[in-house]
Amino acid sequence: MSLDPVLLRIDSDLPNATERLLELLRIPSISTDPAYKGDCETAADWLVADLQSIGVEASKRPTPGHPMVVGHVDGDGPHILFYGHYDVQPVDPLNLWDRDPFDPEVQDTPKGKVIRGRGAADDKGQLMTFVEACRAWKEVNGTLPCKITFFFEGEEESGSPSLVPFMKENAAELTSDIALICDTGMFGEQTPAIVTMLRGLLGEELTIRGASKDLHSGMYGGISMNPIRVLSKIIASLHDESGHVTVPQFYDGVPELSPEIKAQWDGLNFDETGFLGEVGLGTPAGEQDRTGLEMIWSRPTCEVNGIWGGYTGDGFKTVLPAEAHAKISFRLVGTQDPLAIRESFRSYVQSMLPDDCTVEFKAHGASSASQMEITDPAFEKARRALSDEWPEPAAYVGCGGSIPIAGHFKKILGTDAMLIGFGKDDDQIHSPDEKYDLNSFHKGIRSWARVLDALTKG
Amino acid sequence: MSLDPVLLRIDSDLPNATERLLELLRIPSISTDPAYKGDCETAADWLVADLQSIGVEASKRPTPGHPMVVGHVDGDGPHILFYGHYDVQPVDPLNLWDRDPFDPEVQDTPKGKVIRGRGAADDKGQLMTFVEACRAWKEVNGTLPCKITFFFEGEEESGSPSLVPFMKENAAELTSDIALICDTGMFGEQTPAIVTMLRGLLGEELTIRGASKDLHSGMYGGISMNPIRVLSKIIASLHDESGHVTVPQFYDGVPELSPEIKAQWDGLNFDETGFLGEVGLGTPAGEQDRTGLEMIWSRPTCEVNGIWGGYTGDGFKTVLPAEAHAKISFRLVGTQDPLAIRESFRSYVQSMLPDDCTVEFKAHGASSASQMEITDPAFEKARRALSDEWPEPAAYVGCGGSIPIAGHFKKILGTDAMLIGFGKDDDQIHSPDEKYDLNSFHKGIRSWARVLDALTKG
Repeated sequence: MSLDPVLLRIDSDLPNATERLLELLRIPSISTDPAYKGDCETAADWLVADLQSIGVEASKRPTPGHPMVVGHVDGDGPHILFYGHYDVQPVDPLNLWDRDPFDPEVQDTPKGKVIRGRGAADDKGQLMTFVEACRAWKEVNGTLPCKITFFFEGEEESGSPSLVPFMKENAAELTSDIALICDTGMFGEQTPAIVTMLRGLLGEELTIRGASKDLHSGMYGGISMNPIRVLSKIIASLHDESGHVTVPQFYDGVPELSPEIKAQWDGLNFDETGFLGEVGLGTPAGEQDRTGLEMIWSRPTCEVNGIWGGYTGDGFKTVLPAEAHAKISFRLVGTQDPLAIRESFRSYVQSMLPDDCTVEFKAHGASSASQMEITDPAFEKARRALSDEWPEPAAYVGCGGSIPIAGHFKKILGTDAMLIGFGKDDDQIHSPDEKYDLNSFHKGIRSWARVLDALTKG
Repeated sequence: MSLDPVLLRIDSDLPNATERLLELLRIPSISTDPAYKGDCETAADWLVADLQSIGVEASKRPTPGHPMVVGHVDGDGPHILFYGHYDVQPVDPLNLWDRDPFDPEVQDTPKGKVIRGRGAADDKGQLMTFVEACRAWKEVNGTLPCKITFFFEGEEESGSPSLVPFMKENAAELTSDIALICDTGMFGEQTPAIVTMLRGLLGEELTIRGASKDLHSGMYGGISMNPIRVLSKIIASLHDESGHVTVPQFYDGVPELSPEIKAQWDGLNFDETGFLGEVGLGTPAGEQDRTGLEMIWSRPTCEVNGIWGGYTGDGFKTVLPAEAHAKISFRLVGTQDPLAIRESFRSYVQSMLPDDCTVEFKAHGASSASQMEITDPAFEKARRALSDEWPEPAAYVGCGGSIPIAGHFKKILGTDAMLIGFGKDDDQIHSPDEKYDLNSFHKGIRSWARVLDALTKG
């Protein structure tokens, strides 16, 4: 089976592929809002029908929430699973959109043609790059290149409550040689990326309590411990002068980069100044002995995501509050153990409490980091295939965010996941005016054709 | 003129005096709410009529806000000015009141009879103690004991916007030998108090800004400065390990107690444990080389009254906020200069900002402390007079809160003020179910008769 006719077919079919994507984008499959439950069903039905149209044995599979779509096609060579999600983010604030988010269109912009609409990039457009690559392959060669399982979720934007139970119940059916996930971005305009590191996430909420009620600072100020002061001191002490996190044993399990990855990252010439400058910043604020890419990809962090206490309205109130609160999260890497860090963090906070204060903790999720086994030859094959498609060679990159699905494939199914995606930093996912570059869509489809070709050549 | 018949008259007239107070309490003179503007006028009219009924030349005096009531009666001896306020706090939450706050009554409680209703203690009941003392004096002796100016305000609970302009415009009319103010409390159940120190207040609001918009902590966490972390560090550094405020030059103008006052305060046997225990605390948290009374009366403080930033709702959001905010206030003593401290505080904060953060300040008022000249013999005369009325000798005390009126008398009129009041800690002023002990009312009236007698004996 030859690749070139498939690529040609992809090029000539792009207008039809785009029309199909617009059709899918018109379905308002917002998973967080019960009002759109029917639309999530409709989107799943659409995908089932579309997969069936290319010879995939596909069906909608019920869950306590929105349905999964699972499809199989048999074949020789490796068994590949492809994951994507058909649900989308809510659209508010609606008034900030240039047009109806569910009336998508292809628009000309100074930076080229874009597909504008909710879900264009996250994740319907990305999901369809793989489906369209399969369609072209099938049309040219009569079959798909290997055994493929399609696995589409409809709850990714609402925390994937049904995902783990479904994967566990259907583990045999979903186990493959490798999982492909298309929900990430390019490293640069011309540089495709395979994400091989995903940070984990640990969330904690704490409430520091002092007096039994709010006090008047005239009567009690000076003599009474102020919980905001205590909370501030705790937060201030979570980082040392050089930006390291001070929670005891926090760095247990944090690996150093391999010399190969380090050399490759150095070669990426990450534009730290541009990256920070775009959001009005200029000075890397993390561990001062690390590069910018390490800070966002391979180093663990501690962030305060929210803080509140006392009087926060207009004007002034000389209250001495009874409570102060913060939401704190840790991004984790390597084999850092979220539960051990939770325990260590809580003891550390306890150790800093003065007399007259107590603390209450609330857990907000705990997931480990994922690190892919890039020694698996599939990674190098895919990297070369992507490099053939794009002007710049593909890079193994990290991802500062947490994409739990990759960890689930590893833990539940024992499968490594390869995260390849064609999103751009300015796609405005989760925001008004979401778009997907037509170029991302087109070259994304071509990329998958190349990756499928490379993975099945043996 | 003899005191004893006046005291007897006060005792026998108590039921009528109470009825008069209930009448005044029925007028809902809430100064902050424009809906009650007419009621404030009514309360002022009531007071004018009541003063006139005891021979005082009284009138309602317009201001841009609620009217003042000013009355004069001529006489020999010192010229005394008496200040009180006829406006009251709002009553919400109304559902926490046992009865209509403006349908007052005398109630039996396990701790004795109380007058229940909004304004009973703050300040209508207290104000009327002085008026009733004058009424009894007049009824027994035919005249008042000396030249007296009555000065009642109707905007105390809404920040007294008209007070300073009115005092300036009518300075000649309002200047006296000494000002008496009845808006404070007893030191203990049986120990009357003369407040000779009032702390000043400086309010500041600060906003720390980092990135130009809220960021996702997955993408930017680690490399970007977090304004909450910066704000926490600033707040944490405002006190050192021993509880001292670290703002440069903060302690300029903070006096040491005189040996006499120190000895007297030590003699009060302040029940630190009980004071803190009532609000669930147990450890004095101020400057560790100071007594509890010093912490609340004679030492300056720095308190965080409010803090907010990032995501503060239910659940969790891994936002890296663009801004963090705090409201911070300083209680001031002695000759501390609020404006100099504001400037020093702002420079200190600026000096702690990392690259990538800016700060914006908002001023929320600045008033100096007041310290009375207790070497004026009037203070010692009043102290002895109060000691004759109550089981325990009267004390010179401090007041942690800020009562700007005392400072105005000093600054605008050059008059020292003597703050004598009969409120109790459990009067629930500003709260539902406000009350004034009938005993406070009764012995308060008797106390003023004794003080008038002492001040006019020469």
